[in-house]
Amino acid sequence: MIEIPHWLEKQYDLQPDSIAIEMEGDRSITFKELRDYSRKLASGLLNRGIKSGDHVAFLSANHLDYVLFIHAISYVGAVAVCLNIRLSASELAFQIEDSNSCSLVVDEQNKMLGEQSMDESQADIDLLMVEQLTTSEEKIEVRETLRLDEYFTMMYTSGTTGKPKAVMHTYGNHWFSAIASALNLGLTDKDKWLVCLPLFHVGGFSLLMKNVIYGMPIILLDKFDAEVVNRKITHHQVSLVSVVTVMLQRLLKDKKQAYPSTFRGALLGGGPVPAPLLREAFESNISVFQTYGMTETSSQISTLRPSDAFQKLGSAGKALTPASLKIRSGGKPCAPNEIGEIHVKGPMVSSGYYRHSSHENEYLATGDLGYVDEDGFLYVIDRVKDMLISGGENVYPAEIESVLLEVDGVQEAAVTGIEHPEWGEVPIAFVVTRNGYSVTEGQIQKYCKKRLAGFKVPVSIKFIEEIPRNASNKIVRRKLHSLIEKGENREHK
Amino acid sequence: MIEIPHWLEKQYDLQPDSIAIEMEGDRSITFKELRDYSRKLASGLLNRGIKSGDHVAFLSANHLDYVLFIHAISYVGAVAVCLNIRLSASELAFQIEDSNSCSLVVDEQNKMLGEQSMDESQADIDLLMVEQLTTSEEKIEVRETLRLDEYFTMMYTSGTTGKPKAVMHTYGNHWFSAIASALNLGLTDKDKWLVCLPLFHVGGFSLLMKNVIYGMPIILLDKFDAEVVNRKITHHQVSLVSVVTVMLQRLLKDKKQAYPSTFRGALLGGGPVPAPLLREAFESNISVFQTYGMTETSSQISTLRPSDAFQKLGSAGKALTPASLKIRSGGKPCAPNEIGEIHVKGPMVSSGYYRHSSHENEYLATGDLGYVDEDGFLYVIDRVKDMLISGGENVYPAEIESVLLEVDGVQEAAVTGIEHPEWGEVPIAFVVTRNGYSVTEGQIQKYCKKRLAGFKVPVSIKFIEEIPRNASNKIVRRKLHSLIEKGENREHK
Repeated sequence: MIEIPHWLEKQYDLQPDSIAIEMEGDRSITFKELRDYSRKLASGLLNRGIKSGDHVAFLSANHLDYVLFIHAISYVGAVAVCLNIRLSASELAFQIEDSNSCSLVVDEQNKMLGEQSMDESQADIDLLMVEQLTTSEEKIEVRETLRLDEYFTMMYTSGTTGKPKAVMHTYGNHWFSAIASALNLGLTDKDKWLVCLPLFHVGGFSLLMKNVIYGMPIILLDKFDAEVVNRKITHHQVSLVSVVTVMLQRLLKDKKQAYPSTFRGALLGGGPVPAPLLREAFESNISVFQTYGMTETSSQISTLRPSDAFQKLGSAGKALTPASLKIRSGGKPCAPNEIGEIHVKGPMVSSGYYRHSSHENEYLATGDLGYVDEDGFLYVIDRVKDMLISGGENVYPAEIESVLLEVDGVQEAAVTGIEHPEWGEVPIAFVVTRNGYSVTEGQIQKYCKKRLAGFKVPVSIKFIEEIPRNASNKIVRRKLHSLIEKGENREHK
Repeated sequence: MIEIPHWLEKQYDLQPDSIAIEMEGDRSITFKELRDYSRKLASGLLNRGIKSGDHVAFLSANHLDYVLFIHAISYVGAVAVCLNIRLSASELAFQIEDSNSCSLVVDEQNKMLGEQSMDESQADIDLLMVEQLTTSEEKIEVRETLRLDEYFTMMYTSGTTGKPKAVMHTYGNHWFSAIASALNLGLTDKDKWLVCLPLFHVGGFSLLMKNVIYGMPIILLDKFDAEVVNRKITHHQVSLVSVVTVMLQRLLKDKKQAYPSTFRGALLGGGPVPAPLLREAFESNISVFQTYGMTETSSQISTLRPSDAFQKLGSAGKALTPASLKIRSGGKPCAPNEIGEIHVKGPMVSSGYYRHSSHENEYLATGDLGYVDEDGFLYVIDRVKDMLISGGENVYPAEIESVLLEVDGVQEAAVTGIEHPEWGEVPIAFVVTRNGYSVTEGQIQKYCKKRLAGFKVPVSIKFIEEIPRNASNKIVRRKLHSLIEKGENREHK
């Protein structure tokens, strides 16, 4: 059992007057302010009866209150269930119930979505506004230490099964993730990380951890805006930024001048990267550190080192210092350059899913395909076997399929992704209708819109005679792609 | 239970061809060579029947074989008992027996001392030469992972009780110590640490850990030599060096030119620092980071941050990120500027002593006196209540006293330290003789030389009528100091 001082208390102790968070409009707060505000919010949570071990669902956009809430939860010893504001009310209702949350806390922007989620949910719990929780009477019984084996956050991910499962992260998972990154990228007192990823995903969340574990200032943006990010890099001493592919594309497109020497590089995660983009960054003399990671690994677990960034373009590097990585196929280790399933292990890997089996101290089979070259560098081929990424969001075909099957008249359904110039990929559905039923593309999409986040609604519904399946009755998705090509050829005739 | 990849295997994986260790005479080895040689030595240990969990005593000067042995031990999963080559054969014999070592491994230089120790010892164990252990047939069953809760090293320290006790360090203690330092000082790919401290003490040993945990090159010197260290700093891109007070004094005295910008600073540990020395370093524009630590804390647990180095001259800074520090007196916390006993806690703090009680997850009472100022900065007043430091070595009066009491004719004995221009302090003894016995200063010192390391032999023996004691019959050492002053006054007459 490893216990450390509460990381925000420690920064308050070490450097109370240093800037912790810069925001737009020249606003900033110090570590002392961050600590004081977070403790006040913690007192507010305690006043509402929230206690150590409680699960608290949180639905909020990117802003300072998000950060305060996260630290308040740790001061209370509760567990934050980080909800995705892009989900539908019924999807959120499922997660609120499944996570066994005792309260739902929302910000002003997401109040209505929160109320809709509560309407859809069977759970009889409090809906609280984060802005109204802060109290001036500070309770002193907040936690001064953190145990690395205690749970801190829950984030939903669907894997390949369709039904979302909550990944459980301990303080140790987040701590080791931050340390692993520092051992890879180094750490200096000039470092400042720009945050433009959603905080409800682990990629953005992990930067809040680095903020207090390193004692490093961050710039927190409410959303990605290429012009703003480029301005911050050029004029506000940003040393590192975490982005997904579409963001890097926009940054390069918008960039008007060379980045200053204060900028060390961009961490690029969240999916495969087109080689031309990496080459363009290379030619613009911008260091891009391609990463590989997932919710289960508390962000990156493998990253291309700065020293290898240009030699191994397209690789996600090697497993970070406290982590290991193996490629296996058919139960056996793969040779160099042989494609197999990526397996990972390390103290930043979640020990399991809430209400599901644990995989503590074993290799986690990621479901992602890749290979390592003869020098040991990882190349990710296909992230989850069937998953697609649309605008940086994971889209799980099985989840959409289960909704399609709820539509009257739909007998079978299969979903896959097609390339899209702006979003990378978008989902497309294949449907077999029941004999005697008539259902249109519009009807199906309308139903989906009610049940799914916008980015999960298939852009097109193809009606076919039979879903291609293998001997085990599993959908053979690559055959769906050939159906699309055939269809497109027909359209082009 | 936290498991990480073996740290040397990891560096072999990440950067096989990078320089790991530079030595004198332009010799150097890469991480691949360090790994290969260490594994061969591990095979040699396995061939000799040494296995996981065994305690292996090691008596060696500073050179590459020391490093290989340490990593070989970790590949085997055994525990290294790090012996001090400056101890006497009978002191070593005690540690070899007490540690339950299954073998004693020595280098060529310390072969004779090893043999003498075996002669003095009751233990019937193998004496092995480290140079002859390496085998060309590499056994594949070496460890690929390290468990942070497993024991790795034992180092003897006497505390105030006189009898040495073995501090047990886990892999986790050493790992968190290295990480804590990186979070404090930062870490860049330009870092190179110079090692001129003995490797059998935790201060030197910890740099071998940083070497493989950071993947940072080190320069390993067989001993401290001011001219060599200054040359390395000036011409060989040394960024950091760990020293004790007497070394810093000599470096400043020998220094002929300003240190280049590649030099980040000197970590100064091992005892109180004279203010004039800090001022001299300050005026020479040399960053000195004063540290506080002990064997039990796996090296530094509190260090002055670079940004505070000049503002808080004389302070040992604040507890490092994963550690905590409290000053207590009479069972209560002290106010700022109030002197009390320093208590420390953190994952780098040893859980206890071999064959003694454990203090896991509690604050360790260090026996050192100090205070924190109103800004939270630690000032160490007196390290262990009675201990003195001679040339960077801890000298425990109670240990010398027990040897004095073995001398025929000595009825009572008390030891304390007096200031010495070169060694900082040296021990001086007060003796009460038995009625009817006659014993000389020369006879007593001769006996001490047989039983104690040279630096522990009292420079002077004063014959007195009665040892000053308090009500509990404990020696009142400050009264000894007044006896010295009286004595000196007499001599000056």
